[in-house]
Amino acid sequence: MKSDARVRCCPDGLITANRRAVKVLDCTIRDGGIVNDWQFSHQRVGDVFRALNQANVDYMEVGYRTQDGVFDTATTGPWRFCDEQDLVDAGVEPGAMKLSTMVDCHRVTVDDIPPKGDTVIDVVRIATYARHMDKAMRLLDHCLDAGYETFVNVMAVSTLEPDVVHTTLSRLARSGVHNVAIVDSFGALYPEHVRYLVRQYRHILGDTINVGVHFHNNLQQAFANSIAAIDEGVDVVDATLNGMGRGPGNCPLELLLLYLDNPRYNIAPVLEQLAFFDGLRPELAWGYQLPYMVTGQFNVHPQPGIEQVNGPNRHDVREMFDSLSRRVRLRKIG
Amino acid sequence: MKSDARVRCCPDGLITANRRAVKVLDCTIRDGGIVNDWQFSHQRVGDVFRALNQANVDYMEVGYRTQDGVFDTATTGPWRFCDEQDLVDAGVEPGAMKLSTMVDCHRVTVDDIPPKGDTVIDVVRIATYARHMDKAMRLLDHCLDAGYETFVNVMAVSTLEPDVVHTTLSRLARSGVHNVAIVDSFGALYPEHVRYLVRQYRHILGDTINVGVHFHNNLQQAFANSIAAIDEGVDVVDATLNGMGRGPGNCPLELLLLYLDNPRYNIAPVLEQLAFFDGLRPELAWGYQLPYMVTGQFNVHPQPGIEQVNGPNRHDVREMFDSLSRRVRLRKIG
Repeated sequence: MKSDARVRCCPDGLITANRRAVKVLDCTIRDGGIVNDWQFSHQRVGDVFRALNQANVDYMEVGYRTQDGVFDTATTGPWRFCDEQDLVDAGVEPGAMKLSTMVDCHRVTVDDIPPKGDTVIDVVRIATYARHMDKAMRLLDHCLDAGYETFVNVMAVSTLEPDVVHTTLSRLARSGVHNVAIVDSFGALYPEHVRYLVRQYRHILGDTINVGVHFHNNLQQAFANSIAAIDEGVDVVDATLNGMGRGPGNCPLELLLLYLDNPRYNIAPVLEQLAFFDGLRPELAWGYQLPYMVTGQFNVHPQPGIEQVNGPNRHDVREMFDSLSRRVRLRKIG
Repeated sequence: MKSDARVRCCPDGLITANRRAVKVLDCTIRDGGIVNDWQFSHQRVGDVFRALNQANVDYMEVGYRTQDGVFDTATTGPWRFCDEQDLVDAGVEPGAMKLSTMVDCHRVTVDDIPPKGDTVIDVVRIATYARHMDKAMRLLDHCLDAGYETFVNVMAVSTLEPDVVHTTLSRLARSGVHNVAIVDSFGALYPEHVRYLVRQYRHILGDTINVGVHFHNNLQQAFANSIAAIDEGVDVVDATLNGMGRGPGNCPLELLLLYLDNPRYNIAPVLEQLAFFDGLRPELAWGYQLPYMVTGQFNVHPQPGIEQVNGPNRHDVREMFDSLSRRVRLRKIG
């Protein structure tokens, strides 16, 4: 995409250097997997790997690593576990594109994370709530010792009081972690919040720790928040093919790559994969929907939205809105 | 909606005064009508009128006014014409909420626009391409003489060279018009463009002419661009129920009202109407779709996107992307 093909009425100078510097992490198989219980074929994961590799995407997240027994393998697909043999069978290989896996800090032990030399995985991303930071820090120490590049994703930052954000980030600043992501699990943030948080994360974490972002689209802000974060100089942005992800989904990879306008990225193999993923959308129904708008608006977990979208009242959110309105007010008073 | 129910990790000061000052124009029946050939029942238009009125929305656009014979009334619904009797039959009445109608400057004559005293309409919005400004100015003079509040919506601003924007706005600055809207007909703008354009419109139009915005959601930026415009101090923002509008649709009214967090607006009657409009979406299929992403990306009219969405290749946009890529490159060279 040549930038001269685009908007003519504004000066070219609006394309900032930040747009050329930011890196892209695709987490379609991991976050998109939440929508289909990680039931992607090995062939598909291999196809996505090769497409993202050809597109020069910087990171591909191939799934979650999870302790055996936490989920039933009869109903839950292989990318919730990322057994080494599954990764090999899919044809996922080390190379220029870094391979990442996410761990939920309460669904994994240090024994589930092998030394870096025994896996194709380059990066472990530790997902944690702020209240589980002790556990997350022990996992982080293990991952650093084991030789990985490490991210800590402190989830649902929109629900944390400012002093908790400060304490959590201060602890991470001294931890040796490589990247800390701003994670809007509930899709409640607007760009003004994102700008504030990027500056705050950067300030507390210092110059040697990168800052990432992971957004959800409840309020149609996942891509817009990514743009705001890039403008503030964030280092890594998460995206998924067609925005496939929990509830309303994530920042769409196609929108992000075309926005970045970086000749390094190649859109053609991404468009080829989109044909498959967009075909899943009518049945799996991620994207903007009123029940997710309501949970994002009230800054709560998308679960009641997911239930409403799959129930008889997906078009009528009046009762859900009123009920959350009372619940949030009670929580504030209580 | 209490703002204390929302994001906790950022200071409250991020809610700006601009959010309380901006006015809202709902154009569901007019722009949403493009999707269903304006086939809303009189009862529905009356229901929407009463709901928006209760919600304290500032303007309701009830449709287009069009010269007789331009469209076939056998297939095109009444809100493409806005005959006075249809407005009366729907129960649409003058009051605190201003009623607007749009005119396409090449589909209407001055004889189609009666003196203000003979209609329930308060506001005429003249939609024009920059190249038809002579015709638009004649219509504008007529509407001003006839006693209306007037908007001029210069469409597809993203395709205009900067000197054309300047010439067009300079002419409007001397015209007596009340409001000029930034219209992103092709859904090609990002927030950085919107910020630039609001400042430019404001600068050239001066203090006495209001600035409005009308956005489309091809790149998932309709609401985000509205937020950017509000932050820059725009006076009026267009929105539609559930974002119903041509192609990917518009800025959703529900998202806008909840964002504004202005106690003047009442969300309950809007949620009630959403149950109906959201129910239309599976069949009429507005919202983010890959073919609209492609036309927005290439800054062209959504028509090829609309055809692709309704054809066999709605999930596979590779050929469409390549074809537009060649066409845009040829146009640039030729």
